[in-house]
Amino acid sequence: MGLIAGIEAGGTKFVAALASPDGRLLDRTRIATRAPAETFAELAEWFAATARRHGPIAAFGVASFGPLDLDPASPTHGSFTTTPKPGWSGANWHEALGQFGVPVAIDTDVNGAAMGEWMAGAGRGRRTVAYTTVGTGIGTGVVTDGRPLFGASHYEMGHVRPARPALDDGWHGNCPFHGDCLEGLVSGPAIIARWGTDLSQASEAQVMLVADYLAEFAASLALMHAPDVMIFGGGVFNTPGLLEALREKTRAKLAGYAAFYDRPLDDVIVAPALGDGAGITGAIALGRSILSNPSPPAKSR
Amino acid sequence: MGLIAGIEAGGTKFVAALASPDGRLLDRTRIATRAPAETFAELAEWFAATARRHGPIAAFGVASFGPLDLDPASPTHGSFTTTPKPGWSGANWHEALGQFGVPVAIDTDVNGAAMGEWMAGAGRGRRTVAYTTVGTGIGTGVVTDGRPLFGASHYEMGHVRPARPALDDGWHGNCPFHGDCLEGLVSGPAIIARWGTDLSQASEAQVMLVADYLAEFAASLALMHAPDVMIFGGGVFNTPGLLEALREKTRAKLAGYAAFYDRPLDDVIVAPALGDGAGITGAIALGRSILSNPSPPAKSR
Repeated sequence: MGLIAGIEAGGTKFVAALASPDGRLLDRTRIATRAPAETFAELAEWFAATARRHGPIAAFGVASFGPLDLDPASPTHGSFTTTPKPGWSGANWHEALGQFGVPVAIDTDVNGAAMGEWMAGAGRGRRTVAYTTVGTGIGTGVVTDGRPLFGASHYEMGHVRPARPALDDGWHGNCPFHGDCLEGLVSGPAIIARWGTDLSQASEAQVMLVADYLAEFAASLALMHAPDVMIFGGGVFNTPGLLEALREKTRAKLAGYAAFYDRPLDDVIVAPALGDGAGITGAIALGRSILSNPSPPAKSR
Repeated sequence: MGLIAGIEAGGTKFVAALASPDGRLLDRTRIATRAPAETFAELAEWFAATARRHGPIAAFGVASFGPLDLDPASPTHGSFTTTPKPGWSGANWHEALGQFGVPVAIDTDVNGAAMGEWMAGAGRGRRTVAYTTVGTGIGTGVVTDGRPLFGASHYEMGHVRPARPALDDGWHGNCPFHGDCLEGLVSGPAIIARWGTDLSQASEAQVMLVADYLAEFAASLALMHAPDVMIFGGGVFNTPGLLEALREKTRAKLAGYAAFYDRPLDDVIVAPALGDGAGITGAIALGRSILSNPSPPAKSR
């Protein structure tokens, strides 16, 4: 059995890694994200050189920034759609890695992180793992029984509009599409736009308001996906007390209705365990899964 | 290969059916829902007699009212949990059908209906099918690639709190747990409690307000599950114009962000095609799926 290649693709850097069939890291590198042609070329060169040292690659797993076309029936599966990142719209992962002639599994960065945390982090041993990042943007990935979930496209949970404790709480939100969706209310940039400071410098009342919006979202996530663990990371969660407030408020909002969540949520609403490592671990897990289960979203072209 | 038994279990009646391995109906009956012992006994007798005529049963599929314990790891999998229906808490489907000694797949009524519509109705040929009923209660089932989805428990989407067009629109909601969750705002009983009439007798403005709440939910469903078809049924959808208003408002709320939904949603937000038949069709599909894919939620004890 050949080796597994993993790629965590972010807007500023890519992490590339080669792993043994059982997932053990053999080598890794970082590549700055530039135009697709240059970035993909450097990536392919590194994998080709590394494979010469360690052995042939059997599959790629990619956890990528987006938005991406992940419709298994689409002729442009694996391509970037309407990203504002210059040059990247239309760039295609299958083309980028086609020279290796092996299956390529592609998913979002948040599904990749959810896979990584499920394999080796805070989601280990759990059945349904939701991973939410609250930073520059907000996104959630969900893995059930080791399968990343998606529908007609990948999820876009950061744009759900939470019910608000009081409509007139002084802020219209700054999402250019939806105003007061979650991203327009509690992403890092939204918090700075509203209060002129990041949340770690904000008042207790401000932290509690952010926790309230996030708890509306976590309650919806519980009712709509029933994860047995909800992992919350990203820069905004560096705020002391936020995770604890989120636990209490989520339980209070569910009000005893969903039996699974009617208890202290210390082991249900948790921080990531892998930190920066979740994405690349998940990418490798995606690559491994395409070999054992060659169905969407792990897909070969 | 033996025959497939299907059971659609509702609070007032059960529908039981026997089908050929390819899903063709051979016989069916109705049984009034009474105490579990009586109801289960009549059900088992009917299946035993029908199997004597048509041939042996290879698997059961059950689409049942709830709430149910559907955690695959639970020792009480397949039992009713905290239902207010007298006598039913603790009743267990595996015990009820254990005498037949065949695999039993159990799921919720809404996942059953989603399976049925995916197999033979408005979800045919689609990848991710969400089925929502808005009637006495509100619930949503989701099927992806022919697999009903669930997490630590089945979904409880009727209790999601929609963002409201104006908080002070004159009604606190009547859900005993959450007040103004979706069920507390737009279930049949909530509408009657608020306006003293069902929605088909209500004013245009009232219908539009209900459509607005439902569109907040449909937008969340699109962002959180990305179904390629969202089926809306149940008594409240007998209201003329409601489905059309829901399409327009859902698209407007998504505001072009999710490319898949940025078009007239006539083929995305639709009425059920099977009417009353979705549940029993789905139950038979669940029974068939356990034979080809004996994994959760299709589970043998």
